[in-house]
Amino acid sequence: MGINQNILFGNVLTNEGGGYHPNLGVFIAPQSGVYVFSSAIMTNINKEQYSAIAVNGNLVAQIYGHADNGRHDQGSQTVVLKLNAGDEVAVQNRQSNGDVWGSQFSSFSGCLVWL
Amino acid sequence: MGINQNILFGNVLTNEGGGYHPNLGVFIAPQSGVYVFSSAIMTNINKEQYSAIAVNGNLVAQIYGHADNGRHDQGSQTVVLKLNAGDEVAVQNRQSNGDVWGSQFSSFSGCLVWL
Amino acid sequence: MGINQNILFGNVLTNEGGGYHPNLGVFIAPQSGVYVFSSAIMTNINKEQYSAIAVNGNLVAQIYGHADNGRHDQGSQTVVLKLNAGDEVAVQNRQSNGDVWGSQFSSFSGCLVWL
Repeated sequence: MGINQNILFGNVLTNEGGGYHPNLGVFIAPQSGVYVFSSAIMTNINKEQYSAIAVNGNLVAQIYGHADNGRHDQGSQTVVLKLNAGDEVAVQNRQSNGDVWGSQFSSFSGCLVWL
Repeated sequence: MGINQNILFGNVLTNEGGGYHPNLGVFIAPQSGVYVFSSAIMTNINKEQYSAIAVNGNLVAQIYGHADNGRHDQGSQTVVLKLNAGDEVAVQNRQSNGDVWGSQFSSFSGCLVWL
Repeated sequence: MGINQNILFGNVLTNEGGGYHPNLGVFIAPQSGVYVFSSAIMTNINKEQYSAIAVNGNLVAQIYGHADNGRHDQGSQTVVLKLNAGDEVAVQNRQSNGDVWGSQFSSFSGCLVWL
C-alpha cells in the first residue's frame, strides 16, 4: 500500500445506517453527532506498521506495531469524534510499503453515540 | 487453557443489566440492539497469544500478542455488533496452551449503545 | 514522569460537556451515568511502559508496552464505567521514570453512553 491510502476492511459485520463504504474504506457520517471509532492494525511478519485514523484526511490518532522474531504485532486506538454529516473517517496507511495483516486481526469500527 | 475456551474475567467493575456471567466468561444480551465490545489481552512472559471476540461461538475479531526478551505484550480489539436478545459474546482462547496474564492487563468490556 | 502521575494529553480533539481538564490530565464526570473510556499508550524507543486507567486514583485497567530493537510498542485498554458526578478518571504512569511517546500515538478518550 502507498502512503495515505485508505486501508480496506472488506468483511463487514455491521453497517447500520449504511455509513461505511467497504470499496473505499471510508465511513461517511450520515448525520451530525458524537461518534466513537476504533481500529486495530496487525503488522505482517517482521514488519513495522504506521497507520492512522483520519477525519477528512486529517490524522487524529496513530496506530503502531513492530514485529520481530518471525512474528506479528498488533496496535490499536479508540477516539471520540464530533462529526458533521458528510465528514469522512478512514484508517490510512502512513508509510511506504505498508503491510497489514488481515484475517480479523485488523479492524475498523465505529458508531454514533449522541445526536 | 484449551482451544476455544472462554477466558474468565473475574474482577467485575460494572455489570448494569446483569448481562455478564463471570463464572462462564460470557455476556448474554439482555435485549436486542447495537453494542460496543472491547477486549485487551496480555500474554504471559515470552508467550504468543491468539484470542478472539466470538458471538455465539463465531469469531468476529482476533486479538494477538507476542512477547519476547522476558517481557509481555498486549493486544486489543473493539467491535460494534448488532445483537439479538440472548446472543452470547465471549473472549475465547484460540490456541493450544493459551496463556493469558491477568492483574487488570487483560479485560473484556461492552455496553449497549442503541436499542 | 513519576509513579502515579497523570499523563497529560494536550491535543484535545473533542471536549463536549467540558469534562476533560488538559492541564491536569483528568476527566471529571459532569453527570452520573455509564461511560466508555479508552487509552492507547506508546512506549518510547526500547522502553517498557506500565500505565493505568484510574478512577479517583484507583486502578481499573492496566496498559502495557515493551519495545526493543530500537523501536516502539503500543498497548491499549477500553473500559465501561458507571460514574457518579464528580468522579475523576485519568491515565496514570505506574512506574518510575515512565516514558511515553506522544504525537497522537498515545491517547485518552471517553464519552457518556447512558444517563
